[in-house]
Amino acid sequence: MNPPASIGMPLAQVDTPALILDLDVFGRNLGLMADAVKGRGVRLRPHAKSHKSADIAKLQIAAGAVGVCCQKVSEAEALADGGVADILVCNEMVGEAKLARIAALAKRARITVCADNFSNVAALDAAAAAAGVRLEVLIEVDVGAGRCGIAPGEPALVLATAVAAAPNLRFAGVHAYQGSAQHVRGVEARRAEIAAATEKARLSRDLIVGAGIACDTVTGAGTGSFIFERDSGVYTELQPGSYVFMDADYQQNAWDGFPAFGQSLYILATVMSTPSKERVVVDAGLKASSIDSGNPRVAGRPGLDYIKASDEHGVIAVAAGTAAPALGEKLLLVPGHCDPTVNMHDWFVCVRSGVVEALWPVSARGMMW
Amino acid sequence: MNPPASIGMPLAQVDTPALILDLDVFGRNLGLMADAVKGRGVRLRPHAKSHKSADIAKLQIAAGAVGVCCQKVSEAEALADGGVADILVCNEMVGEAKLARIAALAKRARITVCADNFSNVAALDAAAAAAGVRLEVLIEVDVGAGRCGIAPGEPALVLATAVAAAPNLRFAGVHAYQGSAQHVRGVEARRAEIAAATEKARLSRDLIVGAGIACDTVTGAGTGSFIFERDSGVYTELQPGSYVFMDADYQQNAWDGFPAFGQSLYILATVMSTPSKERVVVDAGLKASSIDSGNPRVAGRPGLDYIKASDEHGVIAVAAGTAAPALGEKLLLVPGHCDPTVNMHDWFVCVRSGVVEALWPVSARGMMW
Repeated sequence: MNPPASIGMPLAQVDTPALILDLDVFGRNLGLMADAVKGRGVRLRPHAKSHKSADIAKLQIAAGAVGVCCQKVSEAEALADGGVADILVCNEMVGEAKLARIAALAKRARITVCADNFSNVAALDAAAAAAGVRLEVLIEVDVGAGRCGIAPGEPALVLATAVAAAPNLRFAGVHAYQGSAQHVRGVEARRAEIAAATEKARLSRDLIVGAGIACDTVTGAGTGSFIFERDSGVYTELQPGSYVFMDADYQQNAWDGFPAFGQSLYILATVMSTPSKERVVVDAGLKASSIDSGNPRVAGRPGLDYIKASDEHGVIAVAAGTAAPALGEKLLLVPGHCDPTVNMHDWFVCVRSGVVEALWPVSARGMMW
Repeated sequence: MNPPASIGMPLAQVDTPALILDLDVFGRNLGLMADAVKGRGVRLRPHAKSHKSADIAKLQIAAGAVGVCCQKVSEAEALADGGVADILVCNEMVGEAKLARIAALAKRARITVCADNFSNVAALDAAAAAAGVRLEVLIEVDVGAGRCGIAPGEPALVLATAVAAAPNLRFAGVHAYQGSAQHVRGVEARRAEIAAATEKARLSRDLIVGAGIACDTVTGAGTGSFIFERDSGVYTELQPGSYVFMDADYQQNAWDGFPAFGQSLYILATVMSTPSKERVVVDAGLKASSIDSGNPRVAGRPGLDYIKASDEHGVIAVAAGTAAPALGEKLLLVPGHCDPTVNMHDWFVCVRSGVVEALWPVSARGMMW
């Protein structure tokens, strides 16, 4: 797949729709996160499911991260192929094919995985034995998100004991991610949800340590909450992902006390139809920008409102008194949700001062296995 | 990107998530559409934006279609590369790069494009002149969808006149697609919307023909409405796309008098976590199945309800009295919306009688320019 731009091209000439990364803002976001974590006694392990890019993962590691996390075996393979040496798959993997692949990958990168089920622990142990590796395993504890994870407390202890007893596994700690809290808009409400999650993580960790099992790591947190986990005294590792890009959904959170991450990710779109003074249509629809968390916003153009996405079209309402954009004019859109939007594109068109400076492949685009 | 299956593999061994095509049902859908159009004096030109597959386009043509349509220059290039000889891009193309590419493509395939704007007609004419081709151009008329398109009647006539006068363009007719009517649930309400659209198309055509401009084609219609356009006496060409696959959204339409298209497209998913008797989690979230038109449905398993998609997870509620699926069990999901779901995958895993019979690339996956 050819990129929609070439290096040195002015932004205005990039073909559309294209995934644009503002390198200045992106670089500032990297630095803000590094500063937020430095000297706080916690490790930074950014989530690569947001960017699916080995280039970005390596920049995060250069800025102080210990490695990255991802969600899928095939993502981990793509990141390792791109030179990332320390990867946590913070998700359960079920099925012989996946387990054989992740065990094989552990021969060429430091791989940690999650488990929330006894039979899966046994299957992980067998796969590690077959590959001749020792897999590092976190138990995933449900700290309030209501998705995967074993119940905190005694059930977590029993599962941790099973991992610790498995000859080809090393018990690495507790995965305790409260995903549903990330987009709670108010800072205090978010803080309260993370406080509740932290108590469940602490209880589980204390029981495990009390049983004589070393528990090096308590890992979790996202862009919407990482300040709270950082300061919790329980979490040892943070997994924010979206902070490198931000999106229209995260822009709706209140952020008092958080670093002021900037919007670095955009969809460049062209006005392809101008049916009326009140409505124009752009060439970026829901195959260019995921609408699962709402429509994109038009950046820097008050009075223009992206009101409807269909497969290949976006309808923009033009407010009274606002000049409608002309046919052929290019607009920057802020995606509603960065992660699934990035996954639709093959290239980051990286721009600085209005010129394309780099083209980074979305190395793990479509890697869903 | 390697496929998640190999030919001859039982369905149960396919890695997940995977895009599954039931070849028997798919073949029946092809035949039902061919029968519905045969002898009715209208041409079938299925929409390839649904499948983005040169393999499927060629099967549609073998079953009687005159060619296919698509939405993007890069889609048309991918389909032409795959051997499709007659392609209508039923969308506006704006920008020099796109126009140069579509004009170049017209040297190696029969290409028809749409226009709804005078300056775009001039730009198309210039691009055709530069490439030394004569481009076939339909004017797009807004027959009620409220997206792109010039107003019906006199404005349409003036635009058609401009196309007919352009030395390097051939006026090919009227594009009159009523997209917003396709998912109106009741048959009579849908029929009424298409009747209104048909009147706008008829008015525009009659004015154009009355001005002495030949108008060979009136093209439009989708899976939800094509019976009405077929019988309209106005439309000469039909563009249904989703009928080859169907999806959970289209399944909610009433279909009296329509051919009974079957569900041929699925996402195969694995149960990766079984936190409780009331809830299990599958490994297919919104990066595997687009939720723009609603969540996927679990096929053939009453009592299992896919209630929440996050990036890589789907939460399935298990009704009281229903046995929860076991860890590792595979489920077939009916996508909420077929077109953007297909666009997330690189391969159709084509299955007959429970065995993988073919692997078709999604040739135009991600082709959004």
